[in-house]
Amino acid sequence: VLHAVVARLAPAVRVIDLSHSIAPFDVAGGAALLARAVPHLGDGVVCAVVDPGVGGPRRAVALEIQSAGPGHLVGPDNGLLCEAADALGTVSSAVELSRDEPATTDAITFDGRDLFAPAAAALATGASLASLGTAVDPSTLVRLGVEVPSARSLPDGRTALTATVRWIDRFGNVQLSLDGDVLIAGGIVGVGLVGADALVRVASTFDDLEVGTAGVLRDANGAVALVVAQGSAAERFGLEVGDRVELVGDFGRIP
Amino acid sequence: VLHAVVARLAPAVRVIDLSHSIAPFDVAGGAALLARAVPHLGDGVVCAVVDPGVGGPRRAVALEIQSAGPGHLVGPDNGLLCEAADALGTVSSAVELSRDEPATTDAITFDGRDLFAPAAAALATGASLASLGTAVDPSTLVRLGVEVPSARSLPDGRTALTATVRWIDRFGNVQLSLDGDVLIAGGIVGVGLVGADALVRVASTFDDLEVGTAGVLRDANGAVALVVAQGSAAERFGLEVGDRVELVGDFGRIP
Amino acid sequence: VLHAVVARLAPAVRVIDLSHSIAPFDVAGGAALLARAVPHLGDGVVCAVVDPGVGGPRRAVALEIQSAGPGHLVGPDNGLLCEAADALGTVSSAVELSRDEPATTDAITFDGRDLFAPAAAALATGASLASLGTAVDPSTLVRLGVEVPSARSLPDGRTALTATVRWIDRFGNVQLSLDGDVLIAGGIVGVGLVGADALVRVASTFDDLEVGTAGVLRDANGAVALVVAQGSAAERFGLEVGDRVELVGDFGRIP
Repeated sequence: VLHAVVARLAPAVRVIDLSHSIAPFDVAGGAALLARAVPHLGDGVVCAVVDPGVGGPRRAVALEIQSAGPGHLVGPDNGLLCEAADALGTVSSAVELSRDEPATTDAITFDGRDLFAPAAAALATGASLASLGTAVDPSTLVRLGVEVPSARSLPDGRTALTATVRWIDRFGNVQLSLDGDVLIAGGIVGVGLVGADALVRVASTFDDLEVGTAGVLRDANGAVALVVAQGSAAERFGLEVGDRVELVGDFGRIP
Repeated sequence: VLHAVVARLAPAVRVIDLSHSIAPFDVAGGAALLARAVPHLGDGVVCAVVDPGVGGPRRAVALEIQSAGPGHLVGPDNGLLCEAADALGTVSSAVELSRDEPATTDAITFDGRDLFAPAAAALATGASLASLGTAVDPSTLVRLGVEVPSARSLPDGRTALTATVRWIDRFGNVQLSLDGDVLIAGGIVGVGLVGADALVRVASTFDDLEVGTAGVLRDANGAVALVVAQGSAAERFGLEVGDRVELVGDFGRIP
Repeated sequence: VLHAVVARLAPAVRVIDLSHSIAPFDVAGGAALLARAVPHLGDGVVCAVVDPGVGGPRRAVALEIQSAGPGHLVGPDNGLLCEAADALGTVSSAVELSRDEPATTDAITFDGRDLFAPAAAALATGASLASLGTAVDPSTLVRLGVEVPSARSLPDGRTALTATVRWIDRFGNVQLSLDGDVLIAGGIVGVGLVGADALVRVASTFDDLEVGTAGVLRDANGAVALVVAQGSAAERFGLEVGDRVELVGDFGRIP
């Protein structure tokens, strides 16, 4: 239906679906997906809706960004947009979107259809950010807490890095909140999980691993991923988004 | 493949996917989705296929509607289209689609690809309804039985309304076949289910409810919905489409 | 993200999603889907990615085909493209796609985004095949082994045909690697499965079968399919892609 709203308001604008696969209410998952995707988009407007607080006091916002890619982000002010904004550049201005009529107290709204899509269509056809609402201070935008990986030295000289599962893709590859630069090609890393420790190879590509074998590698987003060749690392290790994972070994760069 | 058929026959026509999530053979679910969506569409043709009777004697039809939105609906004559037609206006004329060659007896057809998409493409590029087949009397179109909610007065003065689960969205919100006008803001309603009665608040928005708490509210389609804040009401109450639910309390308008 | 890459490189090109439903690593399933779809596509480029060997030595290729439909296929050289090429015509030339920089040893690539989509966009906007890489001999392209159905005569004069489950659609219809011409309309066929033999009717359409009843028919791709009216034959018979099924009866044409 959002496509239809944009087609009606901005018939010449092309609309691309980035994903319909974010789990209900998973704002952090949506934020991470946007941050991965936006560097590959051209000029345009990104409209994103993962919005458990719809109808409540959370603000609806549009952001303007100095960026070679998308120049505007539209969505709820619940942390969904900020990682993508960081990946693109800096928020130069922001507005809280105005509603056509005051919110009533006896009806819930479908903000994607009624507020975000119209605002995105307006921006895509040249409306100014200021025309869509009231200026807000970009520093007041809601940000998600970012899990910082932690490192400690072990008596045997190796290092233990603790990171968080940030994304599990549809193949079951487990992306950690850890920059791929920590990995040393050809090394061996211990994956420490409660009751399921394992020693795995640092692989360069999936093809380095025998089918069914686990490994760690730098994935296509530059992060450390725990993988199983032609299998699901999430299933193998029983991991879900948000779980903590410890890697033990020698690392190229300690975060 | 339907997209490709339309792109070939009507290259300038924009195609929007309304949904690929209707369960196999669920004509009523498809009809309800269309009825919710069509008021938000602009001018154009709606092509819909949920078609357990494909290859059988059910007619393939195209309808013309006096409407500010989509002017034509194309699909099987099995009840899929009529609610959407009602939501848009009145069917002014209808045809049974002609097949290019007589139906053979030894092959089943893929009517979406071979019949409905070509007819939709033709209408979208200006073909007349009459050119696509034989006129049929709109009053003979198949209609789905509509569940009528029932009301009875209880000895204590309250009312018991019985309604049907009409739609469960991907979040697990349970839409009933009951107009949202029955609800009194701020009230308390008993949700009567076999073995699982519960008293829930009448909420204005999801944000009125503590996370994990059930409530009823008027949803974005104007209907009564049974919800759980950031959770699944369908799971909580074990409900499926077609189940009967009783609401007990004071209501603003008895259907 | 592939859509965005094409939109950036070839803004005027229309992109159609054929499917996002192929199971991870199921090259044969992707190949079969492409082969079913391409006869219905118009002129253009088909970009396909089911690519368990990404990052390994498998070649990335683009094929040129003498065809009234799509003239180019782009994807991994792992068998994914060859059935579609056969369905369209003959591969007249092929290239191994060049990478902008030599593959590094410490990063895996997202070839869909970084290699296949840009190549498809280039071909769609008129680039020559030769400009995209190094010519390869079409006869060296990887082909999937094709299951050949086998037939044997039974003492009672009937025939036993053994075929492979080639595709299970979302309704649970089971397509076999067997041309629909083998079926005799109105006949009875024994479906031989370990522990679950059954006699089923040869139906012309789903509508010939009582709801819940199994049958065999010539499906919309011209192949033999094992079906259950408004139900799932895959569930009924416990079948998965790749399973072997024996049909016993009288047949119109022995493969």
